[in-house]
Formats: sequence, structure tokens, C-alpha cells
Amino acid sequence: MLAFAVHNQKLVMKERPLPKLRAGWALVRVRMAGICNTDIEILCGYHDFRGTPGHEFVGEVAEVRGASAQERARWRGRRVVGEINVSCSAYGYRPVCTFCRRGLKTHCARRTVLGIVGHDGAFAEYLTLPLENLHVVPDSVSDEQAVFVEPLAAACEILDQINISTFREAAVLGDGKLAQLIARVLRTKLPHVVMYGKHDKKLALVRRVGVKARRVRGDASDVKRLRESYGLVVEATGSPSGLALAQRLTEPRGTLVLKSTFHGTAPVETWPIVVKEITVIGSRCGPFAKALALLRSGKVDPAALITRTFSLAEAGLAIQFAQKNGAMKVLLKP
Amino acid sequence: MLAFAVHNQKLVMKERPLPKLRAGWALVRVRMAGICNTDIEILCGYHDFRGTPGHEFVGEVAEVRGASAQERARWRGRRVVGEINVSCSAYGYRPVCTFCRRGLKTHCARRTVLGIVGHDGAFAEYLTLPLENLHVVPDSVSDEQAVFVEPLAAACEILDQINISTFREAAVLGDGKLAQLIARVLRTKLPHVVMYGKHDKKLALVRRVGVKARRVRGDASDVKRLRESYGLVVEATGSPSGLALAQRLTEPRGTLVLKSTFHGTAPVETWPIVVKEITVIGSRCGPFAKALALLRSGKVDPAALITRTFSLAEAGLAIQFAQKNGAMKVLLKP
Repeated sequence: MLAFAVHNQKLVMKERPLPKLRAGWALVRVRMAGICNTDIEILCGYHDFRGTPGHEFVGEVAEVRGASAQERARWRGRRVVGEINVSCSAYGYRPVCTFCRRGLKTHCARRTVLGIVGHDGAFAEYLTLPLENLHVVPDSVSDEQAVFVEPLAAACEILDQINISTFREAAVLGDGKLAQLIARVLRTKLPHVVMYGKHDKKLALVRRVGVKARRVRGDASDVKRLRESYGLVVEATGSPSGLALAQRLTEPRGTLVLKSTFHGTAPVETWPIVVKEITVIGSRCGPFAKALALLRSGKVDPAALITRTFSLAEAGLAIQFAQKNGAMKVLLKP
Repeated sequence: MLAFAVHNQKLVMKERPLPKLRAGWALVRVRMAGICNTDIEILCGYHDFRGTPGHEFVGEVAEVRGASAQERARWRGRRVVGEINVSCSAYGYRPVCTFCRRGLKTHCARRTVLGIVGHDGAFAEYLTLPLENLHVVPDSVSDEQAVFVEPLAAACEILDQINISTFREAAVLGDGKLAQLIARVLRTKLPHVVMYGKHDKKLALVRRVGVKARRVRGDASDVKRLRESYGLVVEATGSPSGLALAQRLTEPRGTLVLKSTFHGTAPVETWPIVVKEITVIGSRCGPFAKALALLRSGKVDPAALITRTFSLAEAGLAIQFAQKNGAMKVLLKP
């Protein structure tokens, strides 16, 4: 099969044998894969990952191993998306770790992560995942929508972490791909959502779905200039400078959700968190079922965020394109 | 009256008239005042405060204005401690701010803070506070204990912010005055509390009250070296380097309480908060009634933390002494 791998900060195309399957795992033919900022960070050395990147995908089950004949028949040919954290139990570790025992598989102490940590990902013709990670995509949801399930689930994670009914409005910092999904998810629950971003075109996208948008400079001057505050603020700029403004915009005793996972240190003043008694909630991977339900209901349609689709063979070009100013979601189609 | 004020990063002694009283306020004769790290930061320019510092005190009500004869009689001569945030209503602002309306007086948008923001404090023979801020000290609680009520209440604030019954153990980072009180308060609720600190003598103090103690270097090597983790971690080092270790010691989905209010920026990596989905809770002033109850019950006795008591006239000397390595609580006695 065709698969890309990270080599010297570039994507290199390789011809590889089909991956072998463990019992209870599926071979999935990738129908479409999305490029995420994390993939770009991986190229820059994040997690020191040398395998095949890519963790956003929609695919089709090609083969299943070690399940009952009935189960194999149930899965084969189904269009699926897949949770990216592969936990203890899927590798046959016994006993499973304390986090898996508590049902926190995304925090499994021995997890691999599709296309990020120790497990080859979706920038290939095929990938493997445990059956327990797969979710069937309803027929009414297109590939172009389903490929967003992973980041949309990450946006939905916020709703699992806070009691959204206690808030009347929210601010989302950042106007990139994840921020756009977060604003759309919050807008399904709140009448007033305001996005703070640097790019007029990206802000225009979110205005179309009933989210207010405010242009900021993205530097320290914002912190001095802006006077409004919110009970709920989501930091999704992907940039070290976002946290200071996020703290500024969070009202005393407010909630600040952190979504940015850029690496490296940023100079941060933490006393506003203490003085305002802010609750800061780190938020990562989320519930696929909720994301699929949002797509199925039509309450969120992320397809407008697609900038361009490349063939898988052009993955190197695609990831360069994805880093260009103004690019939103870039897809790969094997 | 004798009162100290901040001038050119030093405490300067002054003779001043007795402060005038607003209706509903009390004149309090200071019996004893404590020196806090915030006072030292104020000397260095924190909040640009030029008045009389000092916010930890026990005193005696000397005069009350604008209350009923019955209420005046009830207060006069009573030994009291006082909450340091003075809210809208005490200054007669109408309507009161949204935070006061929600009962969050410590977050009042127009508050002054005793000895810190816009209101003269306890490094003087007398101070003023609204009656609504005062709490009577039970006879069984000594001045040497009562002078700790303000920082002890700040430690108790943690118990109001988290559901302590969901934790079995906790780590406290820092071995200074506030960290010592926090460890004692947590120990009243949890069988296992571990303090991480740099000073053998300070760690020895906490071991005596059933808290485990672990010596660390207080630099980046701790983050690499330590392997244990906790569901609940309290950062009270007062130092920018504390946050990285605190993040390291907090387990996935754990709670990290921030108590340090040092000013200035620190280089911080925030991705561990996101990847581990840590909840970070900023924590400041707390419930005086709970602190008094702890002292009265004998469950916490902070008197062992007193290093030395100076006369008020020696306040300049005392605040220098308080900055010496190994000094814990330093008191002033008018």
C-alpha cells in the first residue's frame, strides 16, 4: 500500500506491505483524511514521531481479525470513523491500567495514538484500529462531513467537561479550524458566542452560522485594549500569546477552557488565574458519538471549512498548502 | 497614631491622626499583625500601593459609627479578625456590582483590599473595616493563633472550591507559610498529604503534624526526576518555577489548585494541562468562619510557625528579618 512517513521534517512517500492485524482489530481503507495542525507540529519534531501521521479520517472496514463470524460480517464494508487513542486492553495488556479501569481510555497510561504516538495513521491507503475504537458513519453523513468527526468530537469534549446550562454566552479565541468547530458546537447550546480572531476571511465564515466575530491583533495590545469579559472562554488560538488574552477575557470565577497544544514555553503571568479564581480546564479528545449526532442532525455542518482536497500521492504538497495563510481544512483522498 | 507607609521600597514610620469612620464601619485597635509575602511584594511595587501595608491582624473594636446603640455595645471591646476585601456596599455604592449581587464580595468590581489596594492596613496602631467584615475571636483562641486567620482562611478556600471527599491524597508544593497552613488544612480531611519543599527545617515542621515531606531542588531537574502523581496538587511555592512541577505531579484528569500570586511572567508550557485534561483552579481569599472553627477545635494550631515577634516601631527591621532564609511567620505588636 501507499503510505507517507515523516523523515527530516518532510513527508516521504513509501510503498509498504499491508499492516498485520491483532485479534479484535480492523483493517480500514482510508476514504479521506484531514490535515490538522498537530500533523504540521509532528513534521517539526513533536513527539519525535517517525511513522505515518494523520488522525482525522473516514474509511471503510476492509478486514477484521479475531471476532466472531457474525461480528466480522457486521463490520466488513461499513463506513467508519475511529477514536485515535488505542488503550491497554486493545494490546492485550493485563491488568489494564488504572485510567482504563476508571473508563478514561483517552488517558490510558500505555496508549498509542493514531498518527501521533507509536501507531501509524491515516496518510496512507490503509490503517488499523481496534474495533472498540470504530464508529459507523450514518448514510446521511457525507465523507466530507465525517472526516471532521475527530476534531468535532474534541470540540464536543467541552460540553462533557462543563455544565453549559450555567452559561449564557461564551468567547472563543482563535479563528482556525478547531476554533471554528468549537464556536459551532457552543452555538448549538448558547444564544451568544463571540469569536476573537486575526483573519477577516475566517471570521466571515463563522458569522454565517450565527456567531459574532471580533477582529483582534493577536498581541499584547489586545490585553490592554479589550474591556469585555465572559463567564466562559475557550482558548483555541494554537499560539502562546492566546493565554494572556484568554485570562483577560475571563471574568472572576469564570471558566477558561484550554484547547491549544502548541509545544514550547510561553511567558505567562499566572496571578490573574489566582486573583480572579478562574477555573482553567484542559480539554483534548472527545466523544465521537456526540459529534456524529451533531452532523446527522444538521446542527453543525463543517464542510464549508474545506479549502482544498489533494490526492494522497500529493500529501507533501498538501501539507505545505495547509500551512499557507488563509488555508482552512485540507483533505487527502487516496 | 503610629502607622507605617511604603516609601521608596521601604517602610517609613509616621505619626497620623486616627482615621475617620464611615457609617457601619469600626475603628479597630491592632493587637497583633502578621507579615505576609504579599507585604514584601508591595514593598517591591506590587499594586503600586503607597499606603499602610498589613492585612493579617487580630485587634479590638475601639469605636463603631452609624450602627444602633445595641449594635455598638455588642461590638465595642470585642476581639476581632477582619476579612480584607471591602466591597461596594460598604462604600455606599448603589446599585452594588454584579459580583456583590451574586454574593461574591471577594470579587467585587470596586473593592479595596486592606493593606493592598486603596485602603490602609494593619502595620499601624489602628485600622478601619466595615462591621460586615469583622469576625469575633472566641476566648479560647489566642492572639498568636488568631493572627493567622486570614491566611488560614485562604487555605480553607480550597475546601470550598473542590469536593475533597473525592480525593484520597494530595501534594502541596512549597514549604513556606501559606503552604504549611494548606498542608495542615488538607490533613484534617485526607489521610495522606505530601509536602514538596526545599528547606529541611521547614519540612521538619510539617512532619510533626502528620504530613509527609519530600525534599526537592526547586528547579527543572525535579520535573524530570519525580515519577509519582496525585489527583490533587496545590501549588503554593510563590515561585514561577513551581507550576511546571505542579503540572508534572498532577495525574490525568486531576485537579491543580494555584495559590501563588508572584508577579511577573514565567516561561510555562501549557500543553500538559491540555493533554492531561487537568483542571486548574485559582484560589485566593477564603472563609474566616471555617478558619476560626479550625483554630477553636484545635485541629490546626499555627502558632508553631511563628519565628519572631517585633514591636510595631521595629516594623522596618521586622520586614527585613521576614525575608531572611528560614524565617517563617514574623509578627508585629503595637
